[in-house]
Amino acid sequence: MNDTNTTLSVLKAQAEKFLEERNWKQFHNPKTDSVNIAVEVAELMEIFLYDNSSEDAFITLEKKRSHVEDELGDIMLALCVFAEIAKVDLAAAFEQKLAKTAAKYPVEKVRGRKEKYDEY
Amino acid sequence: MNDTNTTLSVLKAQAEKFLEERNWKQFHNPKTDSVNIAVEVAELMEIFLYDNSSEDAFITLEKKRSHVEDELGDIMLALCVFAEIAKVDLAAAFEQKLAKTAAKYPVEKVRGRKEKYDEY
Amino acid sequence: MNDTNTTLSVLKAQAEKFLEERNWKQFHNPKTDSVNIAVEVAELMEIFLYDNSSEDAFITLEKKRSHVEDELGDIMLALCVFAEIAKVDLAAAFEQKLAKTAAKYPVEKVRGRKEKYDEY
Amino acid sequence: MNDTNTTLSVLKAQAEKFLEERNWKQFHNPKTDSVNIAVEVAELMEIFLYDNSSEDAFITLEKKRSHVEDELGDIMLALCVFAEIAKVDLAAAFEQKLAKTAAKYPVEKVRGRKEKYDEY
Repeated sequence: MNDTNTTLSVLKAQAEKFLEERNWKQFHNPKTDSVNIAVEVAELMEIFLYDNSSEDAFITLEKKRSHVEDELGDIMLALCVFAEIAKVDLAAAFEQKLAKTAAKYPVEKVRGRKEKYDEY
Repeated sequence: MNDTNTTLSVLKAQAEKFLEERNWKQFHNPKTDSVNIAVEVAELMEIFLYDNSSEDAFITLEKKRSHVEDELGDIMLALCVFAEIAKVDLAAAFEQKLAKTAAKYPVEKVRGRKEKYDEY
Repeated sequence: MNDTNTTLSVLKAQAEKFLEERNWKQFHNPKTDSVNIAVEVAELMEIFLYDNSSEDAFITLEKKRSHVEDELGDIMLALCVFAEIAKVDLAAAFEQKLAKTAAKYPVEKVRGRKEKYDEY
Repeated sequence: MNDTNTTLSVLKAQAEKFLEERNWKQFHNPKTDSVNIAVEVAELMEIFLYDNSSEDAFITLEKKRSHVEDELGDIMLALCVFAEIAKVDLAAAFEQKLAKTAAKYPVEKVRGRKEKYDEY
């Protein structure tokens, strides 16, 4: 299984099967499942915590690639559990958001400019 | 685009194109991109913050489905940016983690039992 | 040391001394230190992850009180490091925010009503 | 009110009064209150999201100091609500954790060394 040959439905179906076989769906709901994603993402952030430059972050990535993949696996699983429990289409959500974001930041206005990133 | 007909490579390629067209890759690295995912996930969590039961969380989900999809779009975009910048295969990471987790919680031992969830 | 006899300055001074003695201030800055708080808060959240009702959360609290205190210690330390590095006054920040929040939710309008919590 | 003249008990009492006056304690529990802290910390992180060096993070801090204080106010309020609801002593938790951390990283072994930070 890899990103080239795997649709999101396949991942969601596997996450659903995992829960179903264990009769665990009863413990899941959108609140708990969103917290679950956050807990896993925090473990990914922790890997890079004391990297105080881009260079350092890329060095850590190479040194700890398997740890990074492990945490990403947790995030993907938590995300697919959420999507399955909440019945959300991740690709459609991505598509809509990308269209919105692209419209908000037109290439000709923002190309190479970091200022966008300061507009919180 | 939907989960049934979309591979993760397609999403990653679109995220990459979005950054490339704006010459924004220079502002990205694994630390920043992991924090970005966390910021977006917090916005998803916030939707369900005061739901103090599963029922309430599902009610909120239906009332705010488009808000939920919007935040999931942000998470998917941030996740694909991370995967693209860090050159990680999300489906492979998912597959490895699911196999590990399934081995850790064998169906015959944990079926229907919540205790697993208390073993932090 | 307890909440009744301890000012925030005392905690901040101890956090500062801890860093200074180890010559560790060089590794700190507001970005890293904010991520540090988030990582510690995620560990607190994880304790209550599968509590799907208020009752369950309070039961977990009693069962795991020392774990909860341990994670709160981490959060307090990370928060004081941030405040020390960023030169922020936590009590003043609290006071301003409480005044603002109290004005936003006047007692006579919101008393006993959960709706406030839905105004994201 | 400032860090020099304010004990944590004073902040916790004000947070408690705020909830009590609005009859809002019924909506709080340790799970929700831990998620609340996480949501507020994410807003602090977001301020520094695209600062890819320590220098940039300190520049952002000065440019957005009032925004930073605002988010810290939210964090302090959420933290004091948690402490009040869960009946935890923050100063005692801090003291215990600092003692533990100081013992784990003896000055003579770690002085000026970043390696500690890589031992996750």
